[in-house]
Amino acid sequence: MPTPRKTRKFRYVSPFGPGMPAGLPVSAELLGGKGAGLARMSRIGLPVPPGFTITTEACTAFSATGRFPAGLEAEVKRAVARLGEAMGRRFGDPKDPLLVSVRSGARVSMPGMMDTVLNLGLNEETVAGLAAASGNERFAWDSYRRFVFMYSDVVLGLSEDECPFEAIFRKHKKRLGVELDTEVGAEDLKKVVAECLALVRKSTGKPFPTDPWEQLWGAIRAVFQSWDNDRAIAYRRMHGFPDDWGTAVNVQTMVFGNLGEDSGTGVAFTRNPATGEKEFYGEYLMNAQGEDVVAGIRTPHPIEDMKKEWPRLYRELEKVRRTLEDNFRDMQDLEFTIQQGRLYILQTRNGKRTGLAAVRIATDLVREKRLSKEEALLKIEPDGVTQLLSPVFQGKEKEKALKAGRLLARGLNAGPGAATGRVVFTAAAAEEWARRGEQVILARQETSPDDIRGMKAAEGILTQHGGMTSHAALVARQMGKVCVAGCGELEILPGRKRLRAGRRVLREGDWISLDGTTGEVLEGRIDTRPSDLLRVISGKAKPSRNGDDARFRQIMRWADSVRKLRVRANADQPDQARTAVALGAEGIGLCRTEHMFFGEKKLPAMQRMILAETPADRRRALRKILPLQRRDFEGLFKAMGSRPVTIRTLDPPLHEFLPHTEKDARALAKTLELPLKEVKARIEALHESNPMLGFRGCRLTWLVPEILEVQATAIFEAAANVRKKGVKVQPEIMIPLVGHHAELRSHEQVVRRIAEEVMKRKKIRFPYLVGTMIEVPRAALTADEIAGVAEFFSFGTNDLTQTTLAVSRDDAGAFLPSYVDRGVYERDPFATIDREGVGKLMRTAVEQARKTRPDIKLGICGEHGGDPSSIEFCHQLDLAYVSCSPYRIPVARLAAAQAALRD
Amino acid sequence: MPTPRKTRKFRYVSPFGPGMPAGLPVSAELLGGKGAGLARMSRIGLPVPPGFTITTEACTAFSATGRFPAGLEAEVKRAVARLGEAMGRRFGDPKDPLLVSVRSGARVSMPGMMDTVLNLGLNEETVAGLAAASGNERFAWDSYRRFVFMYSDVVLGLSEDECPFEAIFRKHKKRLGVELDTEVGAEDLKKVVAECLALVRKSTGKPFPTDPWEQLWGAIRAVFQSWDNDRAIAYRRMHGFPDDWGTAVNVQTMVFGNLGEDSGTGVAFTRNPATGEKEFYGEYLMNAQGEDVVAGIRTPHPIEDMKKEWPRLYRELEKVRRTLEDNFRDMQDLEFTIQQGRLYILQTRNGKRTGLAAVRIATDLVREKRLSKEEALLKIEPDGVTQLLSPVFQGKEKEKALKAGRLLARGLNAGPGAATGRVVFTAAAAEEWARRGEQVILARQETSPDDIRGMKAAEGILTQHGGMTSHAALVARQMGKVCVAGCGELEILPGRKRLRAGRRVLREGDWISLDGTTGEVLEGRIDTRPSDLLRVISGKAKPSRNGDDARFRQIMRWADSVRKLRVRANADQPDQARTAVALGAEGIGLCRTEHMFFGEKKLPAMQRMILAETPADRRRALRKILPLQRRDFEGLFKAMGSRPVTIRTLDPPLHEFLPHTEKDARALAKTLELPLKEVKARIEALHESNPMLGFRGCRLTWLVPEILEVQATAIFEAAANVRKKGVKVQPEIMIPLVGHHAELRSHEQVVRRIAEEVMKRKKIRFPYLVGTMIEVPRAALTADEIAGVAEFFSFGTNDLTQTTLAVSRDDAGAFLPSYVDRGVYERDPFATIDREGVGKLMRTAVEQARKTRPDIKLGICGEHGGDPSSIEFCHQLDLAYVSCSPYRIPVARLAAAQAALRD
Repeated sequence: MPTPRKTRKFRYVSPFGPGMPAGLPVSAELLGGKGAGLARMSRIGLPVPPGFTITTEACTAFSATGRFPAGLEAEVKRAVARLGEAMGRRFGDPKDPLLVSVRSGARVSMPGMMDTVLNLGLNEETVAGLAAASGNERFAWDSYRRFVFMYSDVVLGLSEDECPFEAIFRKHKKRLGVELDTEVGAEDLKKVVAECLALVRKSTGKPFPTDPWEQLWGAIRAVFQSWDNDRAIAYRRMHGFPDDWGTAVNVQTMVFGNLGEDSGTGVAFTRNPATGEKEFYGEYLMNAQGEDVVAGIRTPHPIEDMKKEWPRLYRELEKVRRTLEDNFRDMQDLEFTIQQGRLYILQTRNGKRTGLAAVRIATDLVREKRLSKEEALLKIEPDGVTQLLSPVFQGKEKEKALKAGRLLARGLNAGPGAATGRVVFTAAAAEEWARRGEQVILARQETSPDDIRGMKAAEGILTQHGGMTSHAALVARQMGKVCVAGCGELEILPGRKRLRAGRRVLREGDWISLDGTTGEVLEGRIDTRPSDLLRVISGKAKPSRNGDDARFRQIMRWADSVRKLRVRANADQPDQARTAVALGAEGIGLCRTEHMFFGEKKLPAMQRMILAETPADRRRALRKILPLQRRDFEGLFKAMGSRPVTIRTLDPPLHEFLPHTEKDARALAKTLELPLKEVKARIEALHESNPMLGFRGCRLTWLVPEILEVQATAIFEAAANVRKKGVKVQPEIMIPLVGHHAELRSHEQVVRRIAEEVMKRKKIRFPYLVGTMIEVPRAALTADEIAGVAEFFSFGTNDLTQTTLAVSRDDAGAFLPSYVDRGVYERDPFATIDREGVGKLMRTAVEQARKTRPDIKLGICGEHGGDPSSIEFCHQLDLAYVSCSPYRIPVARLAAAQAALRD
Repeated sequence: MPTPRKTRKFRYVSPFGPGMPAGLPVSAELLGGKGAGLARMSRIGLPVPPGFTITTEACTAFSATGRFPAGLEAEVKRAVARLGEAMGRRFGDPKDPLLVSVRSGARVSMPGMMDTVLNLGLNEETVAGLAAASGNERFAWDSYRRFVFMYSDVVLGLSEDECPFEAIFRKHKKRLGVELDTEVGAEDLKKVVAECLALVRKSTGKPFPTDPWEQLWGAIRAVFQSWDNDRAIAYRRMHGFPDDWGTAVNVQTMVFGNLGEDSGTGVAFTRNPATGEKEFYGEYLMNAQGEDVVAGIRTPHPIEDMKKEWPRLYRELEKVRRTLEDNFRDMQDLEFTIQQGRLYILQTRNGKRTGLAAVRIATDLVREKRLSKEEALLKIEPDGVTQLLSPVFQGKEKEKALKAGRLLARGLNAGPGAATGRVVFTAAAAEEWARRGEQVILARQETSPDDIRGMKAAEGILTQHGGMTSHAALVARQMGKVCVAGCGELEILPGRKRLRAGRRVLREGDWISLDGTTGEVLEGRIDTRPSDLLRVISGKAKPSRNGDDARFRQIMRWADSVRKLRVRANADQPDQARTAVALGAEGIGLCRTEHMFFGEKKLPAMQRMILAETPADRRRALRKILPLQRRDFEGLFKAMGSRPVTIRTLDPPLHEFLPHTEKDARALAKTLELPLKEVKARIEALHESNPMLGFRGCRLTWLVPEILEVQATAIFEAAANVRKKGVKVQPEIMIPLVGHHAELRSHEQVVRRIAEEVMKRKKIRFPYLVGTMIEVPRAALTADEIAGVAEFFSFGTNDLTQTTLAVSRDDAGAFLPSYVDRGVYERDPFATIDREGVGKLMRTAVEQARKTRPDIKLGICGEHGGDPSSIEFCHQLDLAYVSCSPYRIPVARLAAAQAALRD
């Protein structure tokens, strides 16, 4: 009597999909990320192509012994048989073969792991069966060709160098005088395959495996082995992932969207990813493979068309859409294939969206009671919020340009916002021009991951090919960049550095403007201005009808109700301060004071000070600056009201205030009535090998205390003056580049002396703080001593990163990007705090400082203060506040809330 | 019946000196450093002027309450009375008054504490008594004048600004047409005093105190108050000294060396401080004050003269000399005063000595069984040992110069050794010229503490005034500098930047040579060569007759027997390596490889490599360098035999290999047959804002691994070749500027691959290590991860100090000296490890590294590796070795021994 089926449990294999037995419990540990996703979709009844996952435990066993664990073979055989039953086909059946894909799938995606093998199960016999069953010989042979190419590469490990398959294919296309793969017919494909198979035999000394089972076991073995290849091991070492995680293997039935006019493929979002509106959004293409859509070779149709053209399929998709949102409780980005009228969902994931969409979707999902406000807050990518504040065209400038006939073309509105800049045609050029301070628009036929850095450097991205879900569109939205995609009316010629629109030609460096909200591309420069949202929030415009600003405020209110970190702005001008307050700043965390030494009247006085011989002469020169600086501070204090304002005393080296050219030196000598020789000698004397590590910050005010005196006098006099007008300003004086507590002590004494003098003279008393930047490793290491003097610390993580990593930010371009590319640093350490290095030093500083002064006020004012991951780290350190540029404040508020929620 | 005296115990007062009651137990805690020294001399029966010490406990009580503690007044009165009895005079006696000095004396000497007040007890009445008793009215009034000056300044706190006493005195001297104080007679001194006293009354509103008791209590109070002045408090904060230490007050009978021809003063060393020979050595001056000798106004007589002139006093002094050596068990430097035929010892301390003398004295004291070898080792200042290795004139050059009549003058042989250089006349000029790479001789009339840095920068020091114990002589000996002092035959004119010797005139920049061993000063350049000791030790000369080399070896043997740290050399040439081995190097700790890319054949290949476009082109260019570098390494390995050799791979940035001038760029373009534009563009592209933090070290070899490959190939091929000849070389490959373990991993893989290839090809196997410099703070912070890859660490404390302090060594001249001057850093952190900052990071690195790899080999190869205090710290960290320049190796051996002995 045969054992009843249900008692034969699986141990190493977890089936999924319609018609398959129940799988193992859903867990990424056991099934890998991809396997768990497939299992989950299967559970909620979505039509995923059936298949099975071989667990990570099987991999771990294989790694340890070099052999498949006992029982695995039987389980795989059984699962394949069940797959055949579910699909009504048999694996290796020469008449109508079951074909499968094999993919690796570790707990997290990891470079070095084996790539996908599609169409596994094909050989000389089954390909004929596939041709017969599909009624499409070309399809069958092209599938076989693809399988041979992939299998040889990823399983047999034959590189293009060893087996130039692509070259062979190209040779045939050339012979036939065609360009596209699809133009090669079945007979020629047979020739290509035959040549390639012969090459494999010659190269390996063995024939290409024809037995589908041999193919399958070869692929499974290759996945397991890829877990232990050098690249994967190096990656795990780098990220501290244990070796015994192992990888799963996903074996899944192949489905084809290119089996005729009742087949097709598509991608869709359950809501509009650009605006967040609750509408089904996507595109599809009949008789096509997924890669045809992504590559942008043919232009797909909007999903609405399907409603008319394929009403049943549309209804099915609509149901899938609802099911997904019910279960995943978020906007989903799904891929589907229709094989001869039957719908399959290949993948679903939380959809990328613009900041605008993220805010709308989050508030809508709360309104729909799908999410709590805390969950909703966690759904919004903080960086995306900046997009709401991204610029629009100024006034009626665009309208004028349109009237003037400057419209070049219309493309897809892939990334909203307005951008203007000089057009460049390569990512490298974009980076280079941007480095020179130019605004650029990157124009490409289509982008690829190689272009990422250039895209980041550009104001906007313009592509000739590709749809709303093309690489350019996806990445631009994620980055919050303006993007017009698939602009087929244009001809973009990177080789010739030209862009042609009808008879008009733009060359590299010509101005161009993009409206990413409408998809318009315009010739010439159209200046941009802050977003409407920003204007509404700043009180410069009325609330919008679409309610975007109300939703934004809603999110910010929720964020404020949960966050623990306070958020301040880096600002040094009254208008910046007002914007910051409008965006929610609770104070100024960094007021740089160097600009207060520049300007028509101030710079000559500063230069005279630098060229003075005695303290008395220096004081005399600085006295001219004092009333001007006092006015600067009064403006800032008024803008900030009773909020704290942290003012950093002079930081840059003196040579920044002196002329850099012979001509300017001559002019200065004349102005100051000094011999040119003397002026040049002083400039020469102030030259430094490594200015970053030179005579600046508190080192300067240590030897030239007159500067500190005039700054402190201006600050306290301004504070006294505005206090008398009822503005309860709280100045916090911050000394930069402190490395030793004695430096701070000496500065503190000067500041307190001046404060006493001013308060006595002005007959008013008010509180103020004296503290320091922590930006020198020695300061962090001796924070206990420094906290004996400092009432507050503010981490200057820009410089702290430069010194801790011994990397000059100005010079890092030559090597740092390669460190990020190769995964040494997960993210640019100047954008996101390097927690292992710089973070360790910060933690030491925090712990040491609190030992000496438990109530010390701790903050951060480096650019990291506006970076979500760094903000999370600051929350973990229990800092009091982060300080960032005004436009990053909403990001910081949200990121701080998320950190508190995750805590 | 009166209470017997002996039962009335002292509590706050501790008497000392002949005729005084027994004092409290000798302890610096209670009596301060100075008080304890006086008490100790008193105990061993030396004729110190009697006096008493008010304890630190009295000060602590005063600090707490602002009042003298109960009982103190009575004790002081009693002590003063006993003092009068001992001296046969009475305090305040108008006929023959007892005068005292009042000095502060904390546990350690501390800036901010009250200066000395001399001649306390004088007023209009007692000054007459003093005149009568001494029979010298001028002496009495000059003593009174000095007292008024000092007391007004240090007790009444009247600055020269408020009470311009010196100006008044100058005015009178001008009026009288005299220059020296001694030329002003009694009557005029009376006028000066009267004017000054009037000024005090006008300035303070109170008369100058005339009551001797009021004077005394005022001075005691001022000492106590000075403990709590800002400067002293700041100094204690800076050094972590507790406030409750308090200071003692020393009240001591005045003795005078200027009371006639049977009075005098002198200083002496119990052995020759220049050679260490066991001979009484010193100088004295009759009818003079101590300051006359130190200031070098009159030229004193050698102590031998006293034997003839004052045989009784000489015998007494000889006895003192023996007593001191018996008790202090070291060579002493003593000050004495003879007052009307009676000898007083004012002070004794361990004498400063040359390195030569230190070695001789230490070995002699062991031979005399006064010291154990361990104690002897601790008596030698390690830095002094370098002096034994200091240069002498080459061949017969000096003899030739003498014959040619180039002798300018003869002075005192104050600092042995030979020096040649360009003469400069200010310390600032010495620093500046030295910075430009010039050898300089600093010529001054007399030096002062302001000149210290200039003296350090100079090869030798020449003074016109001052004796063997003048400032110049003392400091030069301590620094191990060549010095000719008191060369009265010369006229040194700093204002005119000239030096006159009879009719010959030298101008700034002219060459001059000094023989510090003979005192000769010669015109022109006479090249120097290594010391005889060095030649003997290196086997280039026979052992010397005077036994100096034998003594040196003896000390080194003792040091080697106790030290735990191994000592290696920083060397990259075979001759350096041989010198290092002769001086005791146990390996090479740092072989810099950059010079191996310079030279006639190598540099063009390196430049071609830098300008190459592809890795293949780079390899082709580097291939030319390979055989030359292999030969370099073979030479080094042969010199080092079986000792370990740590080789650092290329460290400097590429721009160091490219031309810096238009002309050189043109030449390079021609050589390489490249367009000039391209060469210049490459130079431009390699320019950096902060090269110290730029594209160098492992960042370079990370992106241009071809350099690493050729270096590793050269090293392993060289090692294989010399191994085949029986030299058991142990190469250790060291990767510079690592900040992340992944960087090191990637380099390690290249090195190991090359090693395997070479060993396979050469058919020989040998051990080698791969490790890293720890010179980036991030590396220290993540040492646990880096130790997972590195087999050894070597602390590169030069760069680690630059990055930890954020101080560029090249630019630090503008500010760092002021940090050292103001005591922020006790010593230059580039000379001595900053233990609080850099040291903390090193400790973290050591602890973290040992967690991952308990047997990791740890060393240091920064310049700190030759600095005694830093070596002590390395011993405390339990490093395996220190590595320093070859000539510092004996210093390091001795310092390592001392660290072990102190442990």
